[in-house]
Amino acid sequence: MASEHHISHQFDAELEAIKSRVLAMGGIVERQIEDAVVAIIDADSQRAEEVVAREKQVNGLEVAVDDEATKILVKRQPAASDLRLVLIITKAVRDLERIGDEAKKIAKLALKLTEEGPAPRGYFELRHIGAAVSEMLHDALDAFTRLDVDAALEVVRRDKTVDQEYRSATRELVTYMMEDPRSISRVMNIMWALRSLERIGDHSRNIAEYVFYLVKGQDLRHVGLENIESTVKSWK
Amino acid sequence: MASEHHISHQFDAELEAIKSRVLAMGGIVERQIEDAVVAIIDADSQRAEEVVAREKQVNGLEVAVDDEATKILVKRQPAASDLRLVLIITKAVRDLERIGDEAKKIAKLALKLTEEGPAPRGYFELRHIGAAVSEMLHDALDAFTRLDVDAALEVVRRDKTVDQEYRSATRELVTYMMEDPRSISRVMNIMWALRSLERIGDHSRNIAEYVFYLVKGQDLRHVGLENIESTVKSWK
Repeated sequence: MASEHHISHQFDAELEAIKSRVLAMGGIVERQIEDAVVAIIDADSQRAEEVVAREKQVNGLEVAVDDEATKILVKRQPAASDLRLVLIITKAVRDLERIGDEAKKIAKLALKLTEEGPAPRGYFELRHIGAAVSEMLHDALDAFTRLDVDAALEVVRRDKTVDQEYRSATRELVTYMMEDPRSISRVMNIMWALRSLERIGDHSRNIAEYVFYLVKGQDLRHVGLENIESTVKSWK
Repeated sequence: MASEHHISHQFDAELEAIKSRVLAMGGIVERQIEDAVVAIIDADSQRAEEVVAREKQVNGLEVAVDDEATKILVKRQPAASDLRLVLIITKAVRDLERIGDEAKKIAKLALKLTEEGPAPRGYFELRHIGAAVSEMLHDALDAFTRLDVDAALEVVRRDKTVDQEYRSATRELVTYMMEDPRSISRVMNIMWALRSLERIGDHSRNIAEYVFYLVKGQDLRHVGLENIESTVKSWK
């Protein structure tokens, strides 16, 4: 991550350390998503249990990073871009923790499906949207590391595609349930899992949007894709 | 809200001002939940449109409070409990914004239901859980204002009840859909609305948990109700 030269090398080291922790947390969370989706697709209850158990670790990392951030603020009283970075880090770990939470929910749905038997539909959509949002998270963290505004914009764009795919998958599954009402309970598990993936996409988008704020100090949350696109263009 | 005596009266005034803004935002969001639920129950599309339109205001408040908090950090470099307060405020407005987002989703489901015709079931549960989470939010903000640990604990307890009621409502609606598959699409709208209400309960619980951190500096997120109860007891 680009960083200004500080008088205190110690401070630089502290900032690097907290950033690394966020990225490590991101790596774990990314794997949580992938494992949770595979647990559903392979009806692998052991893998699902592992995801559920590992969520505690993710929660612990959020608390630890938050604590570290507070200490840096007290000790260093950073200004300008360093302050922005520390504040954004406390926001980003919140999003990562929420993603971890959604992954755990998906793992629990995997456990329900191994009990109730497989759903007759929805696995293709689950695999596809699962891969898309896990890539979004990966790219958002990458954009965050490299302070890459274009890569961040790309993640925001992809969130729109994921939302469309999610809606179309949901519609299809509702139609299927009407044709085969006995499958409703099992298909609903897939529906909830898709919903969680869609949320993971939203949180990944949040992380991407923080990059705009870090790089330019401009808060582009809530302004919509078109406004983000024209603002990023105006920076060139 | 209790506050220490500061050498700078100006600083006190700034903290009071930002707290008032958070509470004002909370008030708007509370009304958004209530209006969204009533919009579904009364099939009132005008009210639903108002909720959707008002969400922008909520988003704007989040950005404004965040901005204000950053300015305070730069200008005042607060320590100890003041720093905790400012950091928690940036977290709390995030939860309020997410609640506003869920309220908007409920309002959009109200619009779908006015098109598709009323669902045959689920209104009772919606009204009940809607009232419960809107009260939870109200009480969480109240606990936040008065730094009332016991009131905060009560909100955390109620979140558990809401989760149980949500699960039982969902089970019942799934059973109903199997009996009457033609109603699936309409009942699903109620299911998604209930899901949003359950999330609103989670966010209200988050706000309540911040009170423990503000009052005692102890981060009791993710530790579970029993541990929170015994920790709060140990403070007496």
